[in-house]
Amino acid sequence: MLKQEVDTVIAERMVGLVNNNSVIREMFEEGKRLAGIYGAENVFDFSLGNPSVPAPEELNRAVKDILDEEPSIFVHGYMSNAGYEDVRATIADSINRRFGTSFNQSNIIMTVGAAGGMNVIFKTILNPGDEVLTFSPYFVEYNSYVSNYDGKLVAIDPDTETFQANIEDLERKITPKTKALIINNPNNPTGVVYSEETIKKVAAILDAKQKEYGTEIFIVSDEPYRELAYDGVEVPYITKYYNNTIVGYSFSKSLSLPGERIGYLVIPDEVDDAEQMKTAAAIATRVLGFVNAPSLMQRAVARCIDAKCDVDSYNRNREALYNGLVKLGFECIKPQGAFYLFVKSPVPDEKEFCNVAKKHNVLLVPGSSFKCAGYVRIAYCVSYDTIINSLPRFAEIAQEMGLSR
Amino acid sequence: MLKQEVDTVIAERMVGLVNNNSVIREMFEEGKRLAGIYGAENVFDFSLGNPSVPAPEELNRAVKDILDEEPSIFVHGYMSNAGYEDVRATIADSINRRFGTSFNQSNIIMTVGAAGGMNVIFKTILNPGDEVLTFSPYFVEYNSYVSNYDGKLVAIDPDTETFQANIEDLERKITPKTKALIINNPNNPTGVVYSEETIKKVAAILDAKQKEYGTEIFIVSDEPYRELAYDGVEVPYITKYYNNTIVGYSFSKSLSLPGERIGYLVIPDEVDDAEQMKTAAAIATRVLGFVNAPSLMQRAVARCIDAKCDVDSYNRNREALYNGLVKLGFECIKPQGAFYLFVKSPVPDEKEFCNVAKKHNVLLVPGSSFKCAGYVRIAYCVSYDTIINSLPRFAEIAQEMGLSR
Repeated sequence: MLKQEVDTVIAERMVGLVNNNSVIREMFEEGKRLAGIYGAENVFDFSLGNPSVPAPEELNRAVKDILDEEPSIFVHGYMSNAGYEDVRATIADSINRRFGTSFNQSNIIMTVGAAGGMNVIFKTILNPGDEVLTFSPYFVEYNSYVSNYDGKLVAIDPDTETFQANIEDLERKITPKTKALIINNPNNPTGVVYSEETIKKVAAILDAKQKEYGTEIFIVSDEPYRELAYDGVEVPYITKYYNNTIVGYSFSKSLSLPGERIGYLVIPDEVDDAEQMKTAAAIATRVLGFVNAPSLMQRAVARCIDAKCDVDSYNRNREALYNGLVKLGFECIKPQGAFYLFVKSPVPDEKEFCNVAKKHNVLLVPGSSFKCAGYVRIAYCVSYDTIINSLPRFAEIAQEMGLSR
Repeated sequence: MLKQEVDTVIAERMVGLVNNNSVIREMFEEGKRLAGIYGAENVFDFSLGNPSVPAPEELNRAVKDILDEEPSIFVHGYMSNAGYEDVRATIADSINRRFGTSFNQSNIIMTVGAAGGMNVIFKTILNPGDEVLTFSPYFVEYNSYVSNYDGKLVAIDPDTETFQANIEDLERKITPKTKALIINNPNNPTGVVYSEETIKKVAAILDAKQKEYGTEIFIVSDEPYRELAYDGVEVPYITKYYNNTIVGYSFSKSLSLPGERIGYLVIPDEVDDAEQMKTAAAIATRVLGFVNAPSLMQRAVARCIDAKCDVDSYNRNREALYNGLVKLGFECIKPQGAFYLFVKSPVPDEKEFCNVAKKHNVLLVPGSSFKCAGYVRIAYCVSYDTIINSLPRFAEIAQEMGLSR
């Protein structure tokens, strides 16, 4: 059976993605299959990072008010490719209030979610052959976001002690071709929040390397989980620590709007060649086919810029699942952000762990999907009942895998 | 003064786009500047293809109903990258009802407008060096949509007699590297509707060339203006004439929603390797950073699939402006679609025509912006008053340019 034709109708660059896709798809299908056999309430699907709490009531209220109050041609119409000026000003003000920055509307480019923003910024800055670093474990889509523009993603080895940034390996892997470092804070899949100390160390190294090589190295800070932080931890605003920082934000998690595709880039004036960069990012938004971020949602998020989804629900899940798993003998860093636990596999090959879990109707994602084998990701953005009812299953899994306690 | 640095911070591929952008931007700025001096009502800006009629009332009603009736996590959440299955089924049914096709939901991929859809399909099919043909004059963004994936756009010479397809030049320009032909029907900027006869001729040539070269040549039919057709003219549904046809549609014009970025691709089962193509297009949607078309708008357009904006308003503008201009001695094909007139310049260099018009506070786009010098585009998606009040200005322009009548 031929798995891959030599001569394909689709683009050759898509063939690998299509073949790979089936792996992820299998997990979806498996979840559905199990739910069909055992009932949805007896299947514990921790595979998806899909918000489990509704959008705040203010959001739907804002949408309705906008439709009543603002003219259709304006609300549903084209605006500048970078977004409505008033929306961008509202966002800049909000960032300034919260983080003591001094942005204005010109620093904000509205994007089709964080994924759209990442594509826009890499289109804007990458030349063929440029290298983009990121800390492992990482969201694998970064590979596409970089290779779409003929860049090369270079993974920095994980620090499995703390899952903070591996500073030594970062320093080792910067070359004259390094154009950017992606930081995902809080992190998917570990849930770790990179501390101010970590960020300062990273900034110092990048500053030194920029001087050494006479290049620009940008931090691209991917922050869809910024508002999901617990225990009062602060998520550093990286533009304050390093000039060549570009922030990518999304309302997907903070307002539970992942399907709406609404976010923004921050391009500070401190960035090298900021004016040209801002212009280019707006053009990249247009030519990549986004044209602009969805108009009604731009106006809606501006109206509820201070609203938040029910972060406490996620925190309750985090506490219950983390404590439950540790009690059963599983090893895991207690994460302070996002909605993931990154649990050490009791056996070296975490796919075996995933297979055992699946026998108990518990679906986990292998760490190798995030380029960090030996761990699994548990997305706890599920109902609290699912968390509680899954614990007896995890107990069975622990027993089967020989965990003592 | 250096116009272009040798060593730029932004990607080299963006530099040309940034420099070019200023040309278009100048027109925006000029409009604003003139409005500031003479008052907005005395400036006649025919430069923008932005719908001038509101979205139908059903659309806003649908949005509000959805927010009241459907769960937040569902309405604002992730779904399949290709879109909600029920929305895609509704769209397939609607196309089938109207055009006698037999699509199902698997043939529909929801996209971030037509521009998003074009990027998705070219990501899906183009290998580096592939050629994509299109009939001049054409929407210049096609250059980016193709070059984003390392393809090369090849323009077919215009047939300035009728502005129907130049079949001879199409045949001449097909090579073994030709992967696609973009057809924009109704056409921007001419407003011409390619007839069934034209489409049949095109299909016959492509079929013959596919056989001759043993290649696949796709028609990518870009149809944002499909519903804007006048005089009862029929816009052929090209999948019925040619198997390797992919349709890109947008609700931007039909429902006056350009800012919302909502449209779809149709990938018929008759297309070569259709299954792989459909899978690849969904993946391309994800990896390009669209992830999915905006969720609430997907559900909204499905609820008012049979609604239309006020096409009669555009038609009234068309008649008034066309008749007015012809009476003044201007030459122009009477267009049957979209909301553009493509008027022959009274002098060979149409930029001179644009400059004279600007002196009379009338803003036109030179045809060279659509790779067809000697003509100008007039976007009549403005208020009827603007049309009527502009006619005395056009009379002054005609006189200044020596048009007799």
